[in-house]
Amino acid sequence: MMRTRPLKVALLGCGVVGSEVARIMTTQAADLAARIGAPVELVGVAVRRPDRVREGIAPGLVTTDATALVKRGDLDVVVEVIGGIEPARTLITTAFAHGASVVSANKALIAQDGAALYAAAEEHGKDLYYEAAVAGAIPLIRPLRESLAGDKVNRVLGIVNGTTNFILDKMDSTGAGYQEALDEATALGYAEADPTADVEGFDAAAKAAILAGIAFHTRVRLDDVHREGMTEVTASDFASAKEMGCTIKLLAICERAADGGSVTARVHPAMIPLTHPLASVRGAYNAVFVESDAAGQLMFYGPGAGGAPTASAVLGDLVAVCRNRLAGTTGPGESAYAALPVSPMGEVVTRYHISLDVADKPGVLAQVATVFAEHGVSIDTVRQQGKDGEASLVVVTHRASDAALDGTVDALRKLDTVRGVASIMRVEGE
Amino acid sequence: MMRTRPLKVALLGCGVVGSEVARIMTTQAADLAARIGAPVELVGVAVRRPDRVREGIAPGLVTTDATALVKRGDLDVVVEVIGGIEPARTLITTAFAHGASVVSANKALIAQDGAALYAAAEEHGKDLYYEAAVAGAIPLIRPLRESLAGDKVNRVLGIVNGTTNFILDKMDSTGAGYQEALDEATALGYAEADPTADVEGFDAAAKAAILAGIAFHTRVRLDDVHREGMTEVTASDFASAKEMGCTIKLLAICERAADGGSVTARVHPAMIPLTHPLASVRGAYNAVFVESDAAGQLMFYGPGAGGAPTASAVLGDLVAVCRNRLAGTTGPGESAYAALPVSPMGEVVTRYHISLDVADKPGVLAQVATVFAEHGVSIDTVRQQGKDGEASLVVVTHRASDAALDGTVDALRKLDTVRGVASIMRVEGE
Repeated sequence: MMRTRPLKVALLGCGVVGSEVARIMTTQAADLAARIGAPVELVGVAVRRPDRVREGIAPGLVTTDATALVKRGDLDVVVEVIGGIEPARTLITTAFAHGASVVSANKALIAQDGAALYAAAEEHGKDLYYEAAVAGAIPLIRPLRESLAGDKVNRVLGIVNGTTNFILDKMDSTGAGYQEALDEATALGYAEADPTADVEGFDAAAKAAILAGIAFHTRVRLDDVHREGMTEVTASDFASAKEMGCTIKLLAICERAADGGSVTARVHPAMIPLTHPLASVRGAYNAVFVESDAAGQLMFYGPGAGGAPTASAVLGDLVAVCRNRLAGTTGPGESAYAALPVSPMGEVVTRYHISLDVADKPGVLAQVATVFAEHGVSIDTVRQQGKDGEASLVVVTHRASDAALDGTVDALRKLDTVRGVASIMRVEGE
Repeated sequence: MMRTRPLKVALLGCGVVGSEVARIMTTQAADLAARIGAPVELVGVAVRRPDRVREGIAPGLVTTDATALVKRGDLDVVVEVIGGIEPARTLITTAFAHGASVVSANKALIAQDGAALYAAAEEHGKDLYYEAAVAGAIPLIRPLRESLAGDKVNRVLGIVNGTTNFILDKMDSTGAGYQEALDEATALGYAEADPTADVEGFDAAAKAAILAGIAFHTRVRLDDVHREGMTEVTASDFASAKEMGCTIKLLAICERAADGGSVTARVHPAMIPLTHPLASVRGAYNAVFVESDAAGQLMFYGPGAGGAPTASAVLGDLVAVCRNRLAGTTGPGESAYAALPVSPMGEVVTRYHISLDVADKPGVLAQVATVFAEHGVSIDTVRQQGKDGEASLVVVTHRASDAALDGTVDALRKLDTVRGVASIMRVEGE
């Protein structure tokens, strides 16, 4: 059964992930050949800094001319682990045009240009696989687009950024503030020198767009994803969460509306009950909770980043794409037939935990309750705490739309007796 | 892109799972057609009792002649949800011979005859898919054989039987004994009238054989799986587990030996630390923990049984098989190239928690410790508790082979000062 002519693979990028891909292709060569049905050969590695020593990679394979590499014409698969939009995008479309299928780990690019890349792949009859783009090693794209292909996914609720989960977990377990926890994450290598993409939710938003697109068979653009970072989460928020029997996680949430006619995608910090499986996801781990009509509740858990875990996902795709090449076929392409409208954040319905600083005098609660009622936001519980002439009021609502909650908060700010809105946190996973 | 001639599907069995498969094929017909690229049509349903009313299934489709159904010659896919060895096996091979691919949920059959069925599928160029055979709705077979195809799996540790997990969870949370917890499971419909297959570990052993085969690319027969049931787990064992910071789960464990040259598969109750992700799997849920070289630790969690969850897995396979039919190809077949030897239980290495009833007099601990030492089993901790002239001795060992532990226990039983071996429990997941 084994074909002897090897399948030719080019690697674009040889950093933390790429070097692991190359290493495993070498050390596991016999296993990969047996599983694919033909040997795979690494025929070129495009890098920016050719002078850096790359253990285990023959120097003759290394080139700085990525364009020439993808234009060779004899490549079976191009593995793109450069990241970012350009030159990755042009290299991928060039690879398709010159006969190669593509395995990518590039969440930013897939989130922004997935539809165009799928179109290019289809035009040339090639595969585009990107399991590694979301949640690192965790098999997630394939289960969503293949295992659940006969089911109707209603919600995807995930911790898809390890850096922020490390920080929030540290704040939860030690009582540390945001900056202190971030400093520790940076010192331990869990956060980059510029942590903006992680802590402001850009990374998670890209993954949310990809997950929502696959889950709902609908194109979801990055701009469709409502995004709030987690830099303003405080130790006091964690104390409030504990009183609720909750913790706080930065969640990527993709939901089908109750009537099934539209979807939403968003990233923000949220309280989640300690009894929810996502609450116990520690450190830099990722986990994604999927709710569907028939399967019910599923969870996928594992390392969301790192060289070897991400390489595992890349190599799983590489094996699949190579098998497809040998069979003369391609795997499932883009599935966006449902084309559901993506609703704005105002239409998202959830619960809210709101802390208000108010004057400590009679009638304040009545005023506040009236504002909630006027905006159609029903109150579940209120807790009042007095302290030296000031008081805090903690309101937990029933389910209400984000627009109604926004209107409520705007009106609360205008009350003389409300000194400030200390925090607003959504409550998810109930 | 849409082909208009429908793909023809026959359903063998219309019980809890089959009726859900038929229901979803009807209610989600448009989605299934869009995802496959052609409509799917249910053309026949083989049942034993044709007089039973089957909501939503046209009476004309129902037949008691399953053999004639699979011999029609125009079927694209046969969905087998009868269970058991015969007539399922003959129907499946007949289906292949008459041109159909097969989706099965039959763990007992796949565990016993998987290799022969794969061979029959390959002979006729057809697909055999069986995601639903292990852990119900949880995508597990596809992630193991596709997502992790570029990785090296070293261990699979799973809760793959919901009935026993319900019983053990109940014993853990309420302090109930085995019989009491079983009675509740039966009353709630989680246990069958004859619970033998579940509580004696036969069901889990079939799943362990399937998982080990896929994880290690090696044929693992049902006879290769060491099996111990959980009927002898007591409330006292749970008390011991709590003292260790553990709970007790019935685990299916598939391991590659440290030297990589052999594998083992086993099912037995075991203590597992409360900090392990499997420890918090409640009720009838299933979860499977996978450890691999590159990906690290992954966990897959969800409902392990039930009509709709199992149907979700069946339909995911149905979509995949239909896509393969349209593309004129087949998915990955059996992968048993590694052909590693399966070692007997004696070679399994793990830790043990042993409770001994001993005479309450000086020198007993020294005698007991000598026996462990003579058999090369190193002791981690010992706890001695006196009570009215009798005493109990709780020994937790370091890692040792099952054979060495067996020898130790045999020798301990021969000591005059050892009145009895109250319990032996393995400690896993550390």
